[in-house]
Amino acid sequence: MRSIVIFYLCYLLCLCLSVACVVCVCVWNSRWRGGFAWDGSALQFNWHPVLMVTGLVVLYGNAAVLYRIPLTWGHNKLPWKLLHAAVMLLALILSIVGLCAVFDFHNAKSTPNLYSLHSWIGIAATALFAMQWVVGMGGFLLPCSPMYLRKLLKPVHVWMGIGILLLSIAACISGINEKLFFVLKGNSGGVQPYSALPPEALLGNSLGVLIFAFGLVVLKILSNYEWQRPDSRPEDMAYTPVLQEENE
Amino acid sequence: MRSIVIFYLCYLLCLCLSVACVVCVCVWNSRWRGGFAWDGSALQFNWHPVLMVTGLVVLYGNAAVLYRIPLTWGHNKLPWKLLHAAVMLLALILSIVGLCAVFDFHNAKSTPNLYSLHSWIGIAATALFAMQWVVGMGGFLLPCSPMYLRKLLKPVHVWMGIGILLLSIAACISGINEKLFFVLKGNSGGVQPYSALPPEALLGNSLGVLIFAFGLVVLKILSNYEWQRPDSRPEDMAYTPVLQEENE
Repeated sequence: MRSIVIFYLCYLLCLCLSVACVVCVCVWNSRWRGGFAWDGSALQFNWHPVLMVTGLVVLYGNAAVLYRIPLTWGHNKLPWKLLHAAVMLLALILSIVGLCAVFDFHNAKSTPNLYSLHSWIGIAATALFAMQWVVGMGGFLLPCSPMYLRKLLKPVHVWMGIGILLLSIAACISGINEKLFFVLKGNSGGVQPYSALPPEALLGNSLGVLIFAFGLVVLKILSNYEWQRPDSRPEDMAYTPVLQEENE
Repeated sequence: MRSIVIFYLCYLLCLCLSVACVVCVCVWNSRWRGGFAWDGSALQFNWHPVLMVTGLVVLYGNAAVLYRIPLTWGHNKLPWKLLHAAVMLLALILSIVGLCAVFDFHNAKSTPNLYSLHSWIGIAATALFAMQWVVGMGGFLLPCSPMYLRKLLKPVHVWMGIGILLLSIAACISGINEKLFFVLKGNSGGVQPYSALPPEALLGNSLGVLIFAFGLVVLKILSNYEWQRPDSRPEDMAYTPVLQEENE
């Protein structure tokens, strides 16, 4: 009972941090960066942080912890698997549109793509996410996928899922840091430099801290053994003969 | 048996990545950034990445996985606790000297300290690490520390330890990204811009990828239930009455 109360406190924190991250990235880009457009200008770039934080971090993290909600444990797993796949698909689509925004912006300015460490980490996160979604769809949702394949795939799927979350958080932290250095140079009229910590810098830094805190809470929820859906716990996976059917 | 073979493969990978990270950051700063000094110049700054990667990431990660080595399980835990504390202390000292290098460099140039997101994440990692070391020393090594306190502290110590590792990796990725943008501007004679991916950029980006891979392997080793020292596994922690002594 105590464990379930602590879970719901963590889950509430996860939801509050989700809202805080999305609000913070939207306010930053609408109020301080001039808003949004899809015309190859800096306003198009502004979609990039908003969509990556919303898709690759917030929706992704929320979809990852879905099976941990004790309220879902008494039900058939299939609708929750469909919801997990659907939210992940939405997260993936937002991330891909977020990448298109920055590629288009770079191409319009003839700036090369994919050279910075931030871009390497971010593109790895999105590419692995797309691969993970396709393999997860084929392995866990297609009825023809055999049980032994699901058992083999599951620990890889969970581990890869955590790796993608960590990549996306590292990409966000490095991206926010880079963006604030780019735009807060303090050499154009009225712009205070990043080093003077103007309100925009405080907001951007706080967004980075919120994203990190969100990732830590998601990781905590995912790694607590007692919060795993009972039919997914390691002892069921480890001690069930590989070819025996289980309530997967 | 199979689990132990996989552990040693992971551990070998962890050691190889440790060496690769240290070699990479040393080569980058000695060959491409001009080497080292302690005179307030850019050569003093070069100690910062070398000491942070070596201390806060590589030594820290290696000290964290020490108890997971099956070879140590048959022995008394105390010498391994002392080794864990000693390597962590060395990691902490290197990190603090690494911070002094950058503070001195900033002060000599009258650049403000601790304004960027990178610095917020990095200072949080080092401050929490120092706190974690002091609390760990008092809680787990002082003979007067009562058993119920050790039991209370242990999950917090493990969880905080993972959080610090994630903070330090995020700090490294954002720091390398920032440094490469700063030094590879392409506007001074003979320097190719970051966007042209000159050899230094490839080396710096590769260092970031190696650090991330190292963190992922350490996290994998820490999170595998079968690789926990038998007297530290959760069932022992959970089912032993709080005041009953155990082979801690």
